[in-house]
Amino acid sequence: MPLSPEQLAEIEELRSHTQPTLRATVPGMEAHLYKAQPVLDHGFVRVIDYMGDDSAICQAARVSYGKGTKSVQNDEGLIRYLMRHWHSTPFEMCEIKLHVKLPVFVARQWIRHRTANVNEYSARYSILDREFYIPEPDALAAQSVVNNQGRGEMLQGQEAARVLEILKADSTRAYDNYEAMISQEGQSGLARELARMNLPANIYTQWYWKVDLHNLFHFLRLRADAHAQYEIRVYADAICEMVKDWVPAAYKAFEDYRMGGATLSATALACIQRMLKGEEVTQENSGMSKGEWREFCSVID
Amino acid sequence: MPLSPEQLAEIEELRSHTQPTLRATVPGMEAHLYKAQPVLDHGFVRVIDYMGDDSAICQAARVSYGKGTKSVQNDEGLIRYLMRHWHSTPFEMCEIKLHVKLPVFVARQWIRHRTANVNEYSARYSILDREFYIPEPDALAAQSVVNNQGRGEMLQGQEAARVLEILKADSTRAYDNYEAMISQEGQSGLARELARMNLPANIYTQWYWKVDLHNLFHFLRLRADAHAQYEIRVYADAICEMVKDWVPAAYKAFEDYRMGGATLSATALACIQRMLKGEEVTQENSGMSKGEWREFCSVID
Amino acid sequence: MPLSPEQLAEIEELRSHTQPTLRATVPGMEAHLYKAQPVLDHGFVRVIDYMGDDSAICQAARVSYGKGTKSVQNDEGLIRYLMRHWHSTPFEMCEIKLHVKLPVFVARQWIRHRTANVNEYSARYSILDREFYIPEPDALAAQSVVNNQGRGEMLQGQEAARVLEILKADSTRAYDNYEAMISQEGQSGLARELARMNLPANIYTQWYWKVDLHNLFHFLRLRADAHAQYEIRVYADAICEMVKDWVPAAYKAFEDYRMGGATLSATALACIQRMLKGEEVTQENSGMSKGEWREFCSVID
Amino acid sequence: MPLSPEQLAEIEELRSHTQPTLRATVPGMEAHLYKAQPVLDHGFVRVIDYMGDDSAICQAARVSYGKGTKSVQNDEGLIRYLMRHWHSTPFEMCEIKLHVKLPVFVARQWIRHRTANVNEYSARYSILDREFYIPEPDALAAQSVVNNQGRGEMLQGQEAARVLEILKADSTRAYDNYEAMISQEGQSGLARELARMNLPANIYTQWYWKVDLHNLFHFLRLRADAHAQYEIRVYADAICEMVKDWVPAAYKAFEDYRMGGATLSATALACIQRMLKGEEVTQENSGMSKGEWREFCSVID
Repeated sequence: MPLSPEQLAEIEELRSHTQPTLRATVPGMEAHLYKAQPVLDHGFVRVIDYMGDDSAICQAARVSYGKGTKSVQNDEGLIRYLMRHWHSTPFEMCEIKLHVKLPVFVARQWIRHRTANVNEYSARYSILDREFYIPEPDALAAQSVVNNQGRGEMLQGQEAARVLEILKADSTRAYDNYEAMISQEGQSGLARELARMNLPANIYTQWYWKVDLHNLFHFLRLRADAHAQYEIRVYADAICEMVKDWVPAAYKAFEDYRMGGATLSATALACIQRMLKGEEVTQENSGMSKGEWREFCSVID
Repeated sequence: MPLSPEQLAEIEELRSHTQPTLRATVPGMEAHLYKAQPVLDHGFVRVIDYMGDDSAICQAARVSYGKGTKSVQNDEGLIRYLMRHWHSTPFEMCEIKLHVKLPVFVARQWIRHRTANVNEYSARYSILDREFYIPEPDALAAQSVVNNQGRGEMLQGQEAARVLEILKADSTRAYDNYEAMISQEGQSGLARELARMNLPANIYTQWYWKVDLHNLFHFLRLRADAHAQYEIRVYADAICEMVKDWVPAAYKAFEDYRMGGATLSATALACIQRMLKGEEVTQENSGMSKGEWREFCSVID
Repeated sequence: MPLSPEQLAEIEELRSHTQPTLRATVPGMEAHLYKAQPVLDHGFVRVIDYMGDDSAICQAARVSYGKGTKSVQNDEGLIRYLMRHWHSTPFEMCEIKLHVKLPVFVARQWIRHRTANVNEYSARYSILDREFYIPEPDALAAQSVVNNQGRGEMLQGQEAARVLEILKADSTRAYDNYEAMISQEGQSGLARELARMNLPANIYTQWYWKVDLHNLFHFLRLRADAHAQYEIRVYADAICEMVKDWVPAAYKAFEDYRMGGATLSATALACIQRMLKGEEVTQENSGMSKGEWREFCSVID
Repeated sequence: MPLSPEQLAEIEELRSHTQPTLRATVPGMEAHLYKAQPVLDHGFVRVIDYMGDDSAICQAARVSYGKGTKSVQNDEGLIRYLMRHWHSTPFEMCEIKLHVKLPVFVARQWIRHRTANVNEYSARYSILDREFYIPEPDALAAQSVVNNQGRGEMLQGQEAARVLEILKADSTRAYDNYEAMISQEGQSGLARELARMNLPANIYTQWYWKVDLHNLFHFLRLRADAHAQYEIRVYADAICEMVKDWVPAAYKAFEDYRMGGATLSATALACIQRMLKGEEVTQENSGMSKGEWREFCSVID
């Protein structure tokens, strides 16, 4: 359970008072506000704030004086058009702020998305909690044999047990030693900014992360993808559920054009045209490498 | 008067319904929402949306579960500390969305601030309105004689009258010709994306502009400064009034550390140290150029 | 002819001395350096500097100690892989700096690409030259009737002549008045920052523009596209010719995956799958709107 | 010693061939190219490429056709002027690409500077080396008692020895277990992307990092500062030495206006004015908090 009773009380306190506002407001998103959605064994995602809704996208695209909405159907069509033609700026007019608790090795992937605002819990200033990500046994995959970057089959029985044993023991020892080094009982106590270097990458950190909808969609396309590492994908999946309730029309267009869509090369388009004319196209006469052909087949089959 | 009755009605409509929200809400900012604050002869600035408040800055700095506020006084101290030490990320956790109507030559300066989101009214797609910035007679300055980039004395009498006459006549003629070229009566009508090239830089455009508080402060420091061009400074001044009502503690710290403060070089600090010890320091023995010395004197006198 | 004899001499001077360097160097790009490639009637693009080459992309992708090249064929395969899987960071490791002279209305579109560095000629500080873009008669298109944002048929005879007459006369008058207002003969002379507001959007400006290869490809994909406005497309086309000589393998991958490729939605992919199985798919049973269907057909036919 | 004989040979190979180029070239920087400057126990910084020089800053500021240089003295004055007035865009016209080997906890601070390009060695794809940062005994500081974020006195004797023992033992054990988990001898072998989570934050990673001079100065101002963590400051210091040889005039202005300078608040400036008039100013009548007053005194004394 990732939250202490005090933290839960703080969240309940925040959820107990509404204020009147003239701003664009989404009831489906209000229902999420502040609540921690659990992810992995100690992590979570929670929405701290949001700006805009589906209408706000249209309002900005039209540079409107009023709501910018003509009709729901009309708005959906405009949003699909904008998504299809990569008109990204109207989507940038929506913003979301999340509080995320996540293992450090996930945080290191996440931070590579540069167009976002971040405040991370400081291990120079504060003491980190004793919380480490220990995978579920069925999330322990072997190194992929077809793909250098990825996972293959699941580890079985003894081997899985040994791995879990190692991860638990090393985490415990590392944290015990972290505590011993910073302790000020009977000694000076090592500076926190130094002691943290002993902590492994499965320790949890947390941050506030604020991003606009366009850049969030870019993050989700890469991180909710089947090729993303499982441990970041579960965060992306949790965020998808929130976005679906926040901007349903934009999310639907995103699913159709980005998550479910594919970018095809000129070579691939030429193959499709030949195939539609009845020609037999094989890897050998496709102009594609074996890897490209395999990816192409997975798209059109 | 920059707004049509229809536009005013759309704004009134937006201001007539409040929604309950759990988000951080600032009554002083709600009072501004959607209303157009007039700037120059046909321009305006209006707030379309905002995210966060003074507490949200502290909440992010502390990566809090709840409000992040210990006490108002405590929060103000933290905000001053963050501003003083250039900890900019907590200020990035607040966001504002504005609708601005402004002359094109002002827009061209404004857009140089790249860390912001923009949707501009499209002159490829739409027809621009016949609205041009014509300065007030007392805003017609001569080229500065001490500073290549700037204004000197005000133009007087005849000369001012001639300038205004030129600006009005050329705007009118350019717009008449714009209309004549795109007209589809008795002719094909030139494409809008081409016809717009005939319009001078004092024509008004408009855009939605969204920016975080840190980058907004950077914009305001440069554009509300006495050396900024008058026509952009009046927009910056109008925005300052809104920010003051939105995040009063942050704005106060910004005024003290940025607007009213100064960055001194090592050379300048050494001069101050010598002066405080009673030494007579002059430009000649200061190590500064004449220009630097003049700027230095204006800071310490 | 856009360059004065003095400017040509400055360019010749720069091209007359080589220096030895240990950096990645591309002979095909050295041949372009500093030379002005004419665009439109008074504009140009010229390369001022570049960093990196095709090998540098691979070197960064592999975080190599040496050249990072295994073989030319191997490098091309890696570059295609990176492009296909949207691994954009290695392309960011190449950088180019251009000097561009372009009409203001083109500059206003161009500057919307925010991830780049820009230094523009200052009309607050300096006096602009009397150079205006006047289209070729065969570039005068009517407003499109199928697409609000774009051009249709070419204007004919009398109408084209009238348009050119207007553009020339208004440019001339605007510049004459600009000169008259800033003149200091017998009067104070209006500040340059004010006088410029009288100049139309077809006046030429110039800037230094520096961008990494990933963001340049993004710019080129949008601006060298058939739907881009002609006046910016010719600049993009001129830059494409330079990039082809600079990073030939990356450019080839860009042509195949971006310029010649297409992004298909989940709906569109499902249609292709049905069509490849022999099913008759029409707009009505496709799940696409008419506009989408039209775009889809243009991709697969 | 951070480099293997093979890596040194690759570097020597790169340094053995010069190419002629027309680009701006800096002999002082050529001398640095590719060579690894050691930092900490296993880390280094080396320059992979650079674009521009002091003249290029002036050339961009003037939007020149030629070199942009009038005279060395004139250029230095312009560079100082640009730095003093926060005209940052001309400094963005210089670019540098570095290869850095650094501990993960340093990398985590470094990456917070978002306006830069990064390619990091992938621990999903590759196996990390057995290299951990173990501080020198005289770099083992206690937690500061006056400042929550920082170091105080050095640890002494026994305590220092215990800390080093812990860091070494835990690193060794963590890496042994990392190897054991990914080993494919007699077992499947855990995926690398999972096994890496067991490695502590003092393990070394490496990346290519490319940044423009303006953003590099911002990085150096914060990270070469006395308040930065020692382990990142030594990297910043090593980079300063390179920048000094690359753009000496810009670096000198940076030292005077940024590193050696200070930003004073309106309140602080008012105190200086009062002090220069002979008034006795104390913390009590200064309008500053105790913390601010302490910082103020350290600036003017």
